[in-house]
Amino acid sequence: MTIQLAIAGAAGRMGRALIAAASDERGLAIVGGSERADNPALGADLGILAQGDALGVVCLDSPEAAAHKAEVWVDFTTPSASLSALDALRATRVRAIVLGTTGFDVAQEAQIAEAAHHFAIVRSGNFSLGINLLMGLVKQAAERLGPDWDIEIFEAHHRRKVDAPSGTALMLGQAAAEGRHVSHSEVASYDRHGGASARKAGEIGYASARGGGIIGEHEVMFASDDEVIRFSHSALNRTIFAKGALAAARWAVGQKPGLYSMADVLGL
Amino acid sequence: MTIQLAIAGAAGRMGRALIAAASDERGLAIVGGSERADNPALGADLGILAQGDALGVVCLDSPEAAAHKAEVWVDFTTPSASLSALDALRATRVRAIVLGTTGFDVAQEAQIAEAAHHFAIVRSGNFSLGINLLMGLVKQAAERLGPDWDIEIFEAHHRRKVDAPSGTALMLGQAAAEGRHVSHSEVASYDRHGGASARKAGEIGYASARGGGIIGEHEVMFASDDEVIRFSHSALNRTIFAKGALAAARWAVGQKPGLYSMADVLGL
Amino acid sequence: MTIQLAIAGAAGRMGRALIAAASDERGLAIVGGSERADNPALGADLGILAQGDALGVVCLDSPEAAAHKAEVWVDFTTPSASLSALDALRATRVRAIVLGTTGFDVAQEAQIAEAAHHFAIVRSGNFSLGINLLMGLVKQAAERLGPDWDIEIFEAHHRRKVDAPSGTALMLGQAAAEGRHVSHSEVASYDRHGGASARKAGEIGYASARGGGIIGEHEVMFASDDEVIRFSHSALNRTIFAKGALAAARWAVGQKPGLYSMADVLGL
Amino acid sequence: MTIQLAIAGAAGRMGRALIAAASDERGLAIVGGSERADNPALGADLGILAQGDALGVVCLDSPEAAAHKAEVWVDFTTPSASLSALDALRATRVRAIVLGTTGFDVAQEAQIAEAAHHFAIVRSGNFSLGINLLMGLVKQAAERLGPDWDIEIFEAHHRRKVDAPSGTALMLGQAAAEGRHVSHSEVASYDRHGGASARKAGEIGYASARGGGIIGEHEVMFASDDEVIRFSHSALNRTIFAKGALAAARWAVGQKPGLYSMADVLGL
Repeated sequence: MTIQLAIAGAAGRMGRALIAAASDERGLAIVGGSERADNPALGADLGILAQGDALGVVCLDSPEAAAHKAEVWVDFTTPSASLSALDALRATRVRAIVLGTTGFDVAQEAQIAEAAHHFAIVRSGNFSLGINLLMGLVKQAAERLGPDWDIEIFEAHHRRKVDAPSGTALMLGQAAAEGRHVSHSEVASYDRHGGASARKAGEIGYASARGGGIIGEHEVMFASDDEVIRFSHSALNRTIFAKGALAAARWAVGQKPGLYSMADVLGL
Repeated sequence: MTIQLAIAGAAGRMGRALIAAASDERGLAIVGGSERADNPALGADLGILAQGDALGVVCLDSPEAAAHKAEVWVDFTTPSASLSALDALRATRVRAIVLGTTGFDVAQEAQIAEAAHHFAIVRSGNFSLGINLLMGLVKQAAERLGPDWDIEIFEAHHRRKVDAPSGTALMLGQAAAEGRHVSHSEVASYDRHGGASARKAGEIGYASARGGGIIGEHEVMFASDDEVIRFSHSALNRTIFAKGALAAARWAVGQKPGLYSMADVLGL
Repeated sequence: MTIQLAIAGAAGRMGRALIAAASDERGLAIVGGSERADNPALGADLGILAQGDALGVVCLDSPEAAAHKAEVWVDFTTPSASLSALDALRATRVRAIVLGTTGFDVAQEAQIAEAAHHFAIVRSGNFSLGINLLMGLVKQAAERLGPDWDIEIFEAHHRRKVDAPSGTALMLGQAAAEGRHVSHSEVASYDRHGGASARKAGEIGYASARGGGIIGEHEVMFASDDEVIRFSHSALNRTIFAKGALAAARWAVGQKPGLYSMADVLGL
Repeated sequence: MTIQLAIAGAAGRMGRALIAAASDERGLAIVGGSERADNPALGADLGILAQGDALGVVCLDSPEAAAHKAEVWVDFTTPSASLSALDALRATRVRAIVLGTTGFDVAQEAQIAEAAHHFAIVRSGNFSLGINLLMGLVKQAAERLGPDWDIEIFEAHHRRKVDAPSGTALMLGQAAAEGRHVSHSEVASYDRHGGASARKAGEIGYASARGGGIIGEHEVMFASDDEVIRFSHSALNRTIFAKGALAAARWAVGQKPGLYSMADVLGL
């Protein structure tokens, strides 16, 4: 049975990637898409927006209308746009949400928790299978390896990425902190430049590089006096995140209301 | 309380490393050491053999005599030498064995299993904490990541190493095969040179490099169409294996007879 | 002024990549393309074959007809197809050839040398700027670093690649051998598996991995007793080779007849 | 003929490494060593200080006396100590200096330039052959690869290192800046954390990690939209710098007064 999807931010980079990826998979149909009221793509065919064949479905400015025929809502937009959509979707038959938006504040987090009474929400800062697996293994390694193993995280991305460290690097660091039963914010160290002192015990250090067209590389290093272990991940193409979000959509459609992670989707 | 150790192959490279490492740690005493009857080091002081201070303990040719005062026997020699020692040690107060010897055949394996009714035997092809942790994580990754993730193992060692792939690389591949519930010997692929065909599904491929003074590097790669995960380990110095064997000795002294792995020692 | 290109093997993977890349660049026009007489793409529009807009130019089975309006012939096909085309092109106004075909035998090499009296031929096994730069630097490193530095080459590619080591790995090894003033075929070592002896002095060792969608990674390692230098290259996407071939086409159109390398094109 | 060496800072970590390394080489003799007037090692035998056999040469507090029998003075201390020694050595037969001290200010640099009228001074921030070769190759790569290749430098060292980035990383960045004919201080970028803007064109970015016992790893990355080149160096042990300094000593003893680099010593 085909799963009906509606895409928020359908004319944006992630929106178009989702539409293109869904067209390549069986059992998924794009039945709606939305954009902000001032977006020039309103009224355009979603398939054409994604540089594919026409789908006979146009981009609308109302989430409610865009989700009219949908079972799952896939949303990689902004905190305020996502929360407005969650409100509007209660009047539709959508029961599952894939939420890739990041940057919610504490009050907004509470709204998501409340929405999870009505929807099965799969939420993640990174929908790749590999990164989600690594988070679990990094947590275990941090738990097993004692305090004489120092943890450092390195990431490299293309020259246009504006934030550093990457959200995914922070997720990996958070997993390491959990494994050590410490507060991430108390141990994270973001800048070694000019340091006039040796490394502090227990720190989780971050380092970032930016250049060219690097899609995304992450490495978590555990270093003792005698040996070094590295866990690394490289994205080979940009479809990885769209594919993961679609896997989450397939999984979420059968779940009860609640807040889920990619670890749930992947059975990790 | 100090643990009394006797070292097999005390004049060899690993034997001397064990003696030197034990001198640097508290709570361990070298009380004996053995070598083959034709070894010129017989009669020499074990501390001097390890380029340290004299210990007042000389190298003997009889395991039984060498183990006279010992609680733990540490043995990184050859299959036949190790098995002879296990026999002789029954007449001593030794109750724990750290066994780093490799290359036992099926009949010899049975002898070890039998000896484990009398001794607590900790046995491993690699006594480093990092490698033993990685084995567990690689097994999990292989179990979680489906068959569309290809597994390849790469290792690099110094120019004098004669076998390839390394025993540790094979241990990592074995862990991956167990995670996939397949027979390692059926999926291992040792030479890609000149291949006139694409990679076979399910293979675990090995590649080796040899050069300079590289102490030991191992990498297990999982590659899908869209992403690549790598688990890597680097040894920073050669004491790592001796230190791990001494940790095993400390642990083994309190155990009941049986066959144990480093995973047991490390609580993995 | 726009440069007129005709593409051999226009319906193949590299042919279509060349057409697509040329459409993205200014000053280049695709004016012809050929395929073998039994190829179902004969008669199809070249732009459509490359999943782009129609170009109004169809795929033909005669190199001579395909090159009718062209200045440069770009050929990544097979030795016999390329040599037939070189013959046929003498009757056209084509004066420059970009030749990416590999695997010529000695007699065929002589035919290419002869053709270089009539055409400016840029020939390479890898048209990326990065790899060609690395070849020059690897040669220098091999020349400067004495025989106590061991050279090993590692490459990784996607699971469908049938040959190993890659042609590019061999080009890098050839560059290292030239730097050392030795014959590559005498020092190349392709399989370390099961070796029962230490590394031979002077060897250049190769190791290959195959998995997932890895586009292409190469690494040349120089290892002494005390330090290791690595030169590595990663392709981020598959357009790199097409772009390099088009850069060669732009350069070649102004050259006298002769045999040229990418080092000439890049001014290395 | 044996070359006579005197070692400044003979009881320090680098001094002892130099004494130990010189004992392992033919044609070199340690004939003197100095320390500060308050150092408890004054009067001790230099060989014993380096954990080797006694040399019959004791540690003195006067550079002039320590250099009494020496041809070459090897100095890895502090700017003021090195400059005092250079003054005092004019009254000796020392004619060659190996200077590994770093951190001189502008006025002190002028004093070194003046001293180079009297001594053959080989000066470097890193005496390893590999790093010095890489500096030359990185400079070439920066010159050949246009401005659409971004340059980033990554380094990792043990947890006790207090400065970041390492002096060697800065030497590599300086070489890249020279290749591009730009001022290093204008393009160096030391902290990407929290950046709210994309990478600036032309930047050379630095990233550092600190952990465990990592001896020293450096990597220079050149990244374009389509490909990435990496030059990396790993130190396998700590003797690498002492060995390089001794190679410089052997070379310097035959040179005219002047200021030389390791590139001169290595013929790069």
